[in-house]
Amino acid sequence: MQNRKHLISVARGEQKADLVLKGGRIFNVFTGELEEGDLAICDGRIAGIERRDDLATGTGCGEDLTAGKVCNANMGHYEGFTELDVSGKILCPGLMDGHIHVESSMLSPAEFAKAVLPHGTTAVVTDPHEIANVAGAEGIRFMMESSKNLPVDLYFMMPSCVPATALDESGAELKAADLKAFYEDDRVLGLAELMNAFGTVRGDEAILSKIADAEAAKKVIDGHAPDLAGKELNAYIAAGARSDHECSTAYEALEKLRKGQWIMIREGTAAKNLNALLPLFEDQYFARCILVTDDKHPGDLLNHGHMDDIIRKAVRAGKKPENAIRMATINTATYFGLKDRGALAPGYTADVLVVSSLEDFRVEKVFKAGRLVAEDGRVCAEGMSGLAVSTENLGEAYPAVRHSFHVRELRPEDFALKETGKWKRVLELTPGELLTKERILPSKLENAASPEGQGQNMAASDMGIETPDGKAVAPGVETDLDIIKIAVIERHKNTGHVGVGFVSGYGLTRGAIASSIAHDSHNLIVAGTNDVDMAVAANAVRENEGGLAIAVDGAVLSSLPLPLGGLMSELSAAAVEEELLHMKSQARALGVPEGIDPFMTLAFTALPVIPKLRILTKGLVDVEAQAYVPTVFD
Amino acid sequence: MQNRKHLISVARGEQKADLVLKGGRIFNVFTGELEEGDLAICDGRIAGIERRDDLATGTGCGEDLTAGKVCNANMGHYEGFTELDVSGKILCPGLMDGHIHVESSMLSPAEFAKAVLPHGTTAVVTDPHEIANVAGAEGIRFMMESSKNLPVDLYFMMPSCVPATALDESGAELKAADLKAFYEDDRVLGLAELMNAFGTVRGDEAILSKIADAEAAKKVIDGHAPDLAGKELNAYIAAGARSDHECSTAYEALEKLRKGQWIMIREGTAAKNLNALLPLFEDQYFARCILVTDDKHPGDLLNHGHMDDIIRKAVRAGKKPENAIRMATINTATYFGLKDRGALAPGYTADVLVVSSLEDFRVEKVFKAGRLVAEDGRVCAEGMSGLAVSTENLGEAYPAVRHSFHVRELRPEDFALKETGKWKRVLELTPGELLTKERILPSKLENAASPEGQGQNMAASDMGIETPDGKAVAPGVETDLDIIKIAVIERHKNTGHVGVGFVSGYGLTRGAIASSIAHDSHNLIVAGTNDVDMAVAANAVRENEGGLAIAVDGAVLSSLPLPLGGLMSELSAAAVEEELLHMKSQARALGVPEGIDPFMTLAFTALPVIPKLRILTKGLVDVEAQAYVPTVFD
Repeated sequence: MQNRKHLISVARGEQKADLVLKGGRIFNVFTGELEEGDLAICDGRIAGIERRDDLATGTGCGEDLTAGKVCNANMGHYEGFTELDVSGKILCPGLMDGHIHVESSMLSPAEFAKAVLPHGTTAVVTDPHEIANVAGAEGIRFMMESSKNLPVDLYFMMPSCVPATALDESGAELKAADLKAFYEDDRVLGLAELMNAFGTVRGDEAILSKIADAEAAKKVIDGHAPDLAGKELNAYIAAGARSDHECSTAYEALEKLRKGQWIMIREGTAAKNLNALLPLFEDQYFARCILVTDDKHPGDLLNHGHMDDIIRKAVRAGKKPENAIRMATINTATYFGLKDRGALAPGYTADVLVVSSLEDFRVEKVFKAGRLVAEDGRVCAEGMSGLAVSTENLGEAYPAVRHSFHVRELRPEDFALKETGKWKRVLELTPGELLTKERILPSKLENAASPEGQGQNMAASDMGIETPDGKAVAPGVETDLDIIKIAVIERHKNTGHVGVGFVSGYGLTRGAIASSIAHDSHNLIVAGTNDVDMAVAANAVRENEGGLAIAVDGAVLSSLPLPLGGLMSELSAAAVEEELLHMKSQARALGVPEGIDPFMTLAFTALPVIPKLRILTKGLVDVEAQAYVPTVFD
Repeated sequence: MQNRKHLISVARGEQKADLVLKGGRIFNVFTGELEEGDLAICDGRIAGIERRDDLATGTGCGEDLTAGKVCNANMGHYEGFTELDVSGKILCPGLMDGHIHVESSMLSPAEFAKAVLPHGTTAVVTDPHEIANVAGAEGIRFMMESSKNLPVDLYFMMPSCVPATALDESGAELKAADLKAFYEDDRVLGLAELMNAFGTVRGDEAILSKIADAEAAKKVIDGHAPDLAGKELNAYIAAGARSDHECSTAYEALEKLRKGQWIMIREGTAAKNLNALLPLFEDQYFARCILVTDDKHPGDLLNHGHMDDIIRKAVRAGKKPENAIRMATINTATYFGLKDRGALAPGYTADVLVVSSLEDFRVEKVFKAGRLVAEDGRVCAEGMSGLAVSTENLGEAYPAVRHSFHVRELRPEDFALKETGKWKRVLELTPGELLTKERILPSKLENAASPEGQGQNMAASDMGIETPDGKAVAPGVETDLDIIKIAVIERHKNTGHVGVGFVSGYGLTRGAIASSIAHDSHNLIVAGTNDVDMAVAANAVRENEGGLAIAVDGAVLSSLPLPLGGLMSELSAAAVEEELLHMKSQARALGVPEGIDPFMTLAFTALPVIPKLRILTKGLVDVEAQAYVPTVFD
């Protein structure tokens, strides 16, 4: 109340503003115009804009559209305790990412905020789907707690599909009642991507009950339904899905838009739909469209940017910056029901960007709630001080996040094939695609050192033995055909489950690569040419309580700890990116080809919703059949 | 849940729809396009639209914007238990009125619904400000209860200024706590027009507390600030006012729109801003604009229509019907946060209009929640059966509404002037304007029969005496100068307060006209040439427990009972209009000139927020001074 009274008083010009940005042009999201004027800020909110034409005439009525009218505006400039000359510059509202999973940046919320802030992002809507698969409701609470008071607002959508399928072994299951409890929090905006479109249009009651709860709480419901069309799409929308971020053609997007969905145009590190969806930037359609990344990796954030990068790309493709900017500001706020975000107008949060031109859209300064938090591509220490929350302290309060590994030490024999048979089933990767193929080949289990032999070596020498080249490969591995082993180790509940299969196209000729990022359940995945290195790499991740590791010849070559749920580092984006680049170059040296991301490709190999074959904790899965299939058989 | 499952199943084409509207074109509010297709309805909601181009190609992908894509739509026509051929017709969403006070139609909610339904109105957002001034929270509850299950959805905004000013004597006062209790109801959308802009920008805590409650409940807050501009407007918007319906120039409207307010373009019986605001129908602005009436009288509704009339007017003025229609459908729904209103799309309420052309916009059929409720300008009895609520039964449960008169029988001497003096103060009316002027004239209290004489006559003859012409006028009345008496009788709490003044411009040469519609407190107002007729007319209203009455020569000439709060009839719009026309013609015969509405002008003469002079229960009020001033003085 007192804040509001103060704001009103500053808006009237009775009291000084905290900050006045003077002499610039202000981008108006409601009309698409640039207005010349001074922007007054107080208590983190915009008090008012004083247009230059008002000042010039002294009547408040400098512009006259129809009949003139005597205005009762009280005149005089806004004055501030701080005044900043922004002549020649343009002021824009802070940018918002409408759909992201912050965990997938591999950064803690605080470090994520530091990475995106210099690019003008002042709010993101995140679906804590990844951490929820590891740590359930506690994981969501961790993300919410560790993002409080950050200079980037994190809003949350409640993960609708944890676990992704019944086949998988995740760390947690989220039922309707688990999600419902979160809707009381104002930062929780709704139910996240309804990935189970199949179940939704068949009236699955568990899904409908989650939808009903979100609707009752007056929240939004995000859809996720690639390629859905016609009557199936009608059913999906009638069920409650209000948006879609999976459109890969303008035709698909327009059908969804016409049927009432908001279209989230996705352009991130992995999925890039911007070019295909450029028609939606036109005047007729843009008002129901929102820009999103649906994940950006640290290097991409550092080197290319965040929402600013999408705006620049759209402008380079010939689209109006006025529309693109609105698709990352007011449209996002409108869809999510955020009434004081996405515009520079009285009462709105003072999230303000300074740019030199809408076309270039290089963010020069970022004010978050009226405070200078980034300048010339760098976060300002002052602006950040006292804002960022240390995850170290928080971690101990969230043991399911900070200590998410529950698996005994692994031995080479854990990766031994239990079955025998003439044939082996191989999961074939395709560069640049998430779809996999299935290949059936002669098993050739004999062309390697016996797993027993390996096990003995290990036990005898504490894994320090140098194995001769060509001898270390596990049974069935054929490096000349690019066929190696892949395994997923259940790591949430210490069940001892290890699924083993073969993969081709990954390229490794020696060693093993392990990761605790393995969609969606984030068990421990490892690919390698031999069981010893697979055990060494996996144990390195285990000892770090999560992360990435590379092992060769029985020794750890490198590792990146991701101790927050096995998903996120506590380091800065630059530090994470440096280590990632280092490890990727090691992986390339070990044979992983261009077109295959050594870690991301591995992560998606465990996602049992994309055809054809995937690997889970109990073995290979035929996605279309949603059933386990044997790795070796007659 | 079961309804939703059924809807989804019908949408998929697995089960028959209740109704399929076949062969028409469907107006898409999201894109402004007309789509050829069939509309399937079930359980009152839209299950889906099947586009004709989908049907033609059989692939669901008849139109190809960029790269073609194989659709997985299951094909085949929607089938319905009822199928209606609407070939050659256009289907539109039902229209919404974004700001109205239903009481001002003088009709009960049920009769109001019957009047607007044939014009395509399927929802209105009403501010029960009038009944609240009479019966407080009970009056609001009465409006909500008596509008349940009507074929027109009534949504409610909570009156923010009851009473309008501290000077007035209303039937109730509504504090923040009284309003807050209503926000739990889903039909309550927010806080109604913040008329006290003066108090708001000065940080009045009672107002800010009402605003804070509405914001905390995630509701909207309507503004009401004619002519406010510049920094004062910034302050008002920063305080929370999200819309404005008082703009009378495009310049004013654009300043408000640019500062983030939604602009309600008002075109009703009294206030007509459409022509001035036509620039806002352009593509750049219309998406933040909403059409409203802010009151229509029964005759206007019957003869010209409701929202359909505004759309037709805009089109005649050269504006795109696509924009105008969206300003009365999806825009209204968006502003008020009504997520399933204002569009023809899966999951939306099946409020569907059938028209032959967007330009003519003559509503031929109206479906409310999938049910045919009006056709060719008439309500369908079947569609209405079981829907309308009888106010007669409800009235007894709401005694403050049904029995709102608390005033003893009036006598001529109640209207006698208590003061003496050389001068009298006259409230001067101007045809076609709400503003009044003040005139000071010689009192001439001697030029009439003495009030005592009148009183004696009355007492002697039970008011049946025929008074000789020219003798019956009260002291100070000068019919040759068009100066008569006017009085307001407190009628809520039987305080016995009667304010007496003089009025010019009303035109009466004989008799008296009384009304219990007297903004905003709705006390009993009466204007007349003599105290006997004033008492007779006032008593006729009193006996009816509200309404209008005309008396001449000591006898009642005509009366229209408005027993619901003294504001609303229980008769149909046609019956009310017939009696109103009859009484208006009687008033004209008694001298009321064209340009003065015998009842509406009277009603506004008691509103102490419009300069210059008004009459309240304690006498004449100088609005600018917000103080009582004597009627007769030296």
